[in-house]
Amino acid sequence: MMEPDNLIDAVLQRYAAAVHAKDVEAFAALYAADVRVFDLWGEWACEGIAAWRAMAESWFGSLGDERVVVTFDSVRTMVAGDMALVHGFVTYQGVARDGTPLRAMHNRMTQGLRRRDGAWKVVHEHTSSPVDLATGKALLSH
Amino acid sequence: MMEPDNLIDAVLQRYAAAVHAKDVEAFAALYAADVRVFDLWGEWACEGIAAWRAMAESWFGSLGDERVVVTFDSVRTMVAGDMALVHGFVTYQGVARDGTPLRAMHNRMTQGLRRRDGAWKVVHEHTSSPVDLATGKALLSH
Repeated sequence: MMEPDNLIDAVLQRYAAAVHAKDVEAFAALYAADVRVFDLWGEWACEGIAAWRAMAESWFGSLGDERVVVTFDSVRTMVAGDMALVHGFVTYQGVARDGTPLRAMHNRMTQGLRRRDGAWKVVHEHTSSPVDLATGKALLSH
Repeated sequence: MMEPDNLIDAVLQRYAAAVHAKDVEAFAALYAADVRVFDLWGEWACEGIAAWRAMAESWFGSLGDERVVVTFDSVRTMVAGDMALVHGFVTYQGVARDGTPLRAMHNRMTQGLRRRDGAWKVVHEHTSSPVDLATGKALLSH
């Protein structure tokens, strides 16, 4: 059984590295073929790695020469056998080519993982921001 | 090990029953003392059963003589040892005292569960709706 801290390293750090590198293959490799994602934006669910890979291609392609620095905080992990649950807060910080910080967005993130043949893969991911009751708008900064 | 179908019965059906009955005690009994909820509304996180129970009291108390019928669909469950992950879509259908359907709201829901002393408890819950990119508003109906 992988220890929780190592699991966080293996998945969250690789997530951050793949996003920073805008590396679609490295990003897609974190997820199981039958992944179901409840993403913050637009769609109720994204089913399967092909659709999720297409999201990453579109996201990374939209960034031009900007990059996104992903950081996590208040992460909690629970592991039992070949299954794990991770939840915490994530910050997506846009950075210009010259290093200037641009807009930042905060999310909550939950991931469910499964280990097959020794490799941990995300089988379910849920990202969101809380919604303001008065305006119906998502609060993207805390 | 509880079978996935029974787990869904045990947790989701009791969730629906507690909400329909507006029974704060039955609702709170579904959750672990150290539960962390990423709820759709207002707050980034709700930490611990006392805060989550207060949410339920406020919610149920706001309903007057209306009730809420909760239904789930496309639910997937994964169980390993004393841990489980459940994710799917949930509909909250308001019903007037005379049975007339009122407003309805759709959410995505993810739950992480842990079994201690034979009892399954929700240790993490994440509910949300996707956000429309153009307006920044949550889509509460699909």
